[in-house]
Amino acid sequence: MKNIFVNPIFWEGDHICIIDQTKLPVELVYEGCRDISSVWRAVKKLKVRGAPLIGIAAAMGFVLGLRRSKVKTWPGLLQEARKISRYLASARPTAVNLFWALGRMVRVVEAHEGEDKKRLLLFLKKEADAILSEDIRMCFQMSRHAACLVKNGDSLLTVCNAGGLATSGYGTALGVFYRAHEEGKSIKVYACETRPLLQGARLTTWELLHNKIDVTLICDNMAADLMRLGRIDAVFVGADRIAANGDFANKIGTYSLAVLAYYHKIPFYCVAPSSTLDLSLGSGKEIPIEQRDPLEVTSFYFKKPIAPTGVHVFNPAFDITPASFISAIITEKGLIRKPFGRNLRRLHGRLSQKH
Amino acid sequence: MKNIFVNPIFWEGDHICIIDQTKLPVELVYEGCRDISSVWRAVKKLKVRGAPLIGIAAAMGFVLGLRRSKVKTWPGLLQEARKISRYLASARPTAVNLFWALGRMVRVVEAHEGEDKKRLLLFLKKEADAILSEDIRMCFQMSRHAACLVKNGDSLLTVCNAGGLATSGYGTALGVFYRAHEEGKSIKVYACETRPLLQGARLTTWELLHNKIDVTLICDNMAADLMRLGRIDAVFVGADRIAANGDFANKIGTYSLAVLAYYHKIPFYCVAPSSTLDLSLGSGKEIPIEQRDPLEVTSFYFKKPIAPTGVHVFNPAFDITPASFISAIITEKGLIRKPFGRNLRRLHGRLSQKH
Repeated sequence: MKNIFVNPIFWEGDHICIIDQTKLPVELVYEGCRDISSVWRAVKKLKVRGAPLIGIAAAMGFVLGLRRSKVKTWPGLLQEARKISRYLASARPTAVNLFWALGRMVRVVEAHEGEDKKRLLLFLKKEADAILSEDIRMCFQMSRHAACLVKNGDSLLTVCNAGGLATSGYGTALGVFYRAHEEGKSIKVYACETRPLLQGARLTTWELLHNKIDVTLICDNMAADLMRLGRIDAVFVGADRIAANGDFANKIGTYSLAVLAYYHKIPFYCVAPSSTLDLSLGSGKEIPIEQRDPLEVTSFYFKKPIAPTGVHVFNPAFDITPASFISAIITEKGLIRKPFGRNLRRLHGRLSQKH
Repeated sequence: MKNIFVNPIFWEGDHICIIDQTKLPVELVYEGCRDISSVWRAVKKLKVRGAPLIGIAAAMGFVLGLRRSKVKTWPGLLQEARKISRYLASARPTAVNLFWALGRMVRVVEAHEGEDKKRLLLFLKKEADAILSEDIRMCFQMSRHAACLVKNGDSLLTVCNAGGLATSGYGTALGVFYRAHEEGKSIKVYACETRPLLQGARLTTWELLHNKIDVTLICDNMAADLMRLGRIDAVFVGADRIAANGDFANKIGTYSLAVLAYYHKIPFYCVAPSSTLDLSLGSGKEIPIEQRDPLEVTSFYFKKPIAPTGVHVFNPAFDITPASFISAIITEKGLIRKPFGRNLRRLHGRLSQKH
């Protein structure tokens, strides 16, 4: 397993160090988070983004929060842990990895009734480290399972950034490209720029260029034309939450690509670790969708406004892609094909047995 | 017929005055074009844009060019006219209205063999004025024919700017909205921002707000989500060139909307004057597509780059929408339904008889 060229989150002494991803690709700026409110802000403002990475950031932030707490004994620490969890969970509503990671952290506190603070913090630090290292391993496993879907000479399309910057490792969708490249396959990647915040233009192209992958940037509205011209062989995307029936939330624009791929008979793959599954939700209809600031559309990244003052704006951060559009979901356990409802339940059964 | 609130092109004394549309919506700046090279640059740089408007600009520029020419007598003037026409035609390759208008101007010179320069210029000025005033009338007629397609309470989607700023009058697609609004219908318009040059965000929302139409700006990748949510009743777009079989070129992203509308069973209308027809081309495959500067995608309108240096870029200005996706084409002569091949030939027959 090769290392990714940058590490988007790590411990530095007693604080967390992150790459401020809003500054890429112009500057590679590291920022220290010394308390949970700075972690919360980093997640909220998308300095740290990508479903797996915000889970990791929340787990690390949780440790920071409890360490800084003045509470010293167990019942109080449990209360404090739940409060910290609620606070960090409020940063963003859609990616379930955030709640999943915080749930794991709270369960560690619950499982160590009466433990003294110092030892409890050791257990919590270990759990956060485990979440991070499991993510690295899951990324690698997903990429290994999915690389067989990529043929030599393929042109592949992706949206947003589902790469090393969105995880602690290889990435999800981009991990597949890295693996295929390492296996010696010649591939060409088209990256949708991903308006409004341009994660595709700013982050995905930057990652792929650094990893020597042939990448071409397109505006989101150009994907259909490429498909019509026969220039896309498969679409690979990440996910922020996958419901029990296989419907999933991902960056706005994903659903558009799914419909276009369906019409052009192009395989459409969703690559996500099991931490992205939320089997408590029956379908995509139940996934909460974050609406973001209109300014992201009307002036973000621009020095001057690009729309007249007072215009209404529709700015959902995510959309829902129904399961029927997905050719396969790739998790660390392998490829899941239709029927997704039954096969996701089976996967969940296997995961539960293991724990 | 109400007037549109701005006039994107007009004569001011002996020169042409245009709105520099690249500066909208931040500033409303008028610019004088005193020679054909400034007209050429205005078209090339999209200060003047929109298929009908670049036809008008070319006709007016043609007058300017021949007036400034040192040639005094007819055979030389004809040669000069053809040279000016070739030069102005080279500014942009896709919209046929440019070549159509220049063809009309050259034919005026051809039809007046031996005419002295002063009288010839009067005829040419008259022809350019006719092209402009016919466009105003055609816009009005299109809007009247198409408004019956809009129901009270409808939510309508459009892309780029097919409005008063793209024509000399009401606009094409936006003309339909203006007319429906004047007829007292309550409508809601969603404007795709239209990357990379943001004509939807900058121009369409500006026009619609000034004309008191309820408009909501979206990023191009959000249209599919709105359709899935049942929030779009019809799509109206303009055209840059329509081939004999009904395939048409329009701003990049149009094809994407056509496929999405088809999948969601939403009517998809193309609104364009007969000057946009090019029956010499059998299908959309023959329409030349302009590829533009990668910088438009990687940094245009941004003060700082939004993508890493050296990334490949795919930046076609237009795409082709096959006729099968179109519910109706609306010209100044009325609605054209399938089969478009036969019905466009009939329309052409009627137009030819008239001339």
